[in-house]
Amino acid sequence: MIGIFDSGIGGLTVAREVMRALPDCPVCYLGDTARTPYGNKSPETVTRFALQDTEFLLDQGARVIVVACNSASSTAVDTLRKTFDVPLFEVITPAVETAVSLPRVKNIGVIGTRATVKSGIYERMIKERDEQKRVFQKECPLLVPLVEEGWLDKPETRMIVKKYLLPLKVRQVDALILGCTHYPLLRGIIQQKIGKRVKVIDSSQALAQALAAFLEQNPALKRDLSRDVPSLIHVTDVTEQFQTIAQRILRKNVTLTHVSL
Amino acid sequence: MIGIFDSGIGGLTVAREVMRALPDCPVCYLGDTARTPYGNKSPETVTRFALQDTEFLLDQGARVIVVACNSASSTAVDTLRKTFDVPLFEVITPAVETAVSLPRVKNIGVIGTRATVKSGIYERMIKERDEQKRVFQKECPLLVPLVEEGWLDKPETRMIVKKYLLPLKVRQVDALILGCTHYPLLRGIIQQKIGKRVKVIDSSQALAQALAAFLEQNPALKRDLSRDVPSLIHVTDVTEQFQTIAQRILRKNVTLTHVSL
Repeated sequence: MIGIFDSGIGGLTVAREVMRALPDCPVCYLGDTARTPYGNKSPETVTRFALQDTEFLLDQGARVIVVACNSASSTAVDTLRKTFDVPLFEVITPAVETAVSLPRVKNIGVIGTRATVKSGIYERMIKERDEQKRVFQKECPLLVPLVEEGWLDKPETRMIVKKYLLPLKVRQVDALILGCTHYPLLRGIIQQKIGKRVKVIDSSQALAQALAAFLEQNPALKRDLSRDVPSLIHVTDVTEQFQTIAQRILRKNVTLTHVSL
Repeated sequence: MIGIFDSGIGGLTVAREVMRALPDCPVCYLGDTARTPYGNKSPETVTRFALQDTEFLLDQGARVIVVACNSASSTAVDTLRKTFDVPLFEVITPAVETAVSLPRVKNIGVIGTRATVKSGIYERMIKERDEQKRVFQKECPLLVPLVEEGWLDKPETRMIVKKYLLPLKVRQVDALILGCTHYPLLRGIIQQKIGKRVKVIDSSQALAQALAAFLEQNPALKRDLSRDVPSLIHVTDVTEQFQTIAQRILRKNVTLTHVSL
């Protein structure tokens, strides 16, 4: 089983790509909807929650962990790696590697939650790979609630996206990393407001490919993961809102299992 | 000590009025900022959190509890009353009594979080007191994140408030209850968008008056509450954002104490 967690619903955009890339590997998803969002909370609190989330997934039988939340990926991954001896994938590295590998990209924009942007992790990781790149970050804390409300194409959402992206547009970024797993749901508006010539990067596909490549190299683990059990979605709070948006993301009916952490 | 809790920052609008009405009674405030917001979560989850919040305040020495969160007031108060033998004040009743006592008010609008509106408590309590009144409710889930971001006077906030209030304006409400302790921070915009002739009702002053009146009738309890200890603000997560908005609400420097529940 592949264990995937997020503060709430955004990580399902990652789960969808993992399910596509590895159709034979069942997924155990945890959305910590009782404590969502993580992105406006402190690194200490996000790390504490991420430890509990990972422990839950391992208890359920997960043998690989995907941190499908940028806020947790940017603040908690080192602690998770020190605490748990299990292959762990996060959503920062695949986006960074995609961005630095693009030709003719000098200025890279990054949008994310307050926790992600404050961590500075994207800038650090991009500069480690290519110190010529210039990185411009912008925190966009209202995009998560707008997505969770399902306001994916309202004029107010367009105005807010435009306002958030303006400083990056002024800097003439060549590529824009969607540094939050909720943002792919606003991809159309984001592409429109940042401009057609800017390459918009979402980590979920690159992450799913990296995970698939890793499992190709580890066939015993892959066989072990591919046992015939159903994929499951666990949430720490059950709401209609989650159910509706989860179905929109996964394009199928979903059954939620309520758990307490 | 008067114990006051909310999911986060909104309850400080109530704490401010309690401190004004009862300057000799120290306040012990708890903002459950690690799990905020409550308003888009299920009644079961909100009740579980409210039980933990109340228990924490009682452990700190609170002798009276104020539930300064409409989502918790509308879903958890019966359980709290059954569980704890302590005087308990909530934010629904004072607003309801103010609304039904107003002359020439037939149509009453109520705005709140999804949890509060779904509970139907305002309509039930208003009809119990006067079944001639007509009640129109509207959930406004994005107003809490907008307030927590400090977007108190942005054009996007004005547009969203206008959109939310439109169905109540069409119903020609005579009074509008602010059914969430965050909303008084948007009072100016709300009054403007709903129209000058509509009476806007915020429960915090009425609640503080009811609490003061209760303590006048219970002088021994009031003496006991008035011990010379400082007022304290506890939070389950410490962020700069909270600090800034808390100072704006209380109009003084605040020191936050971090606690885990």
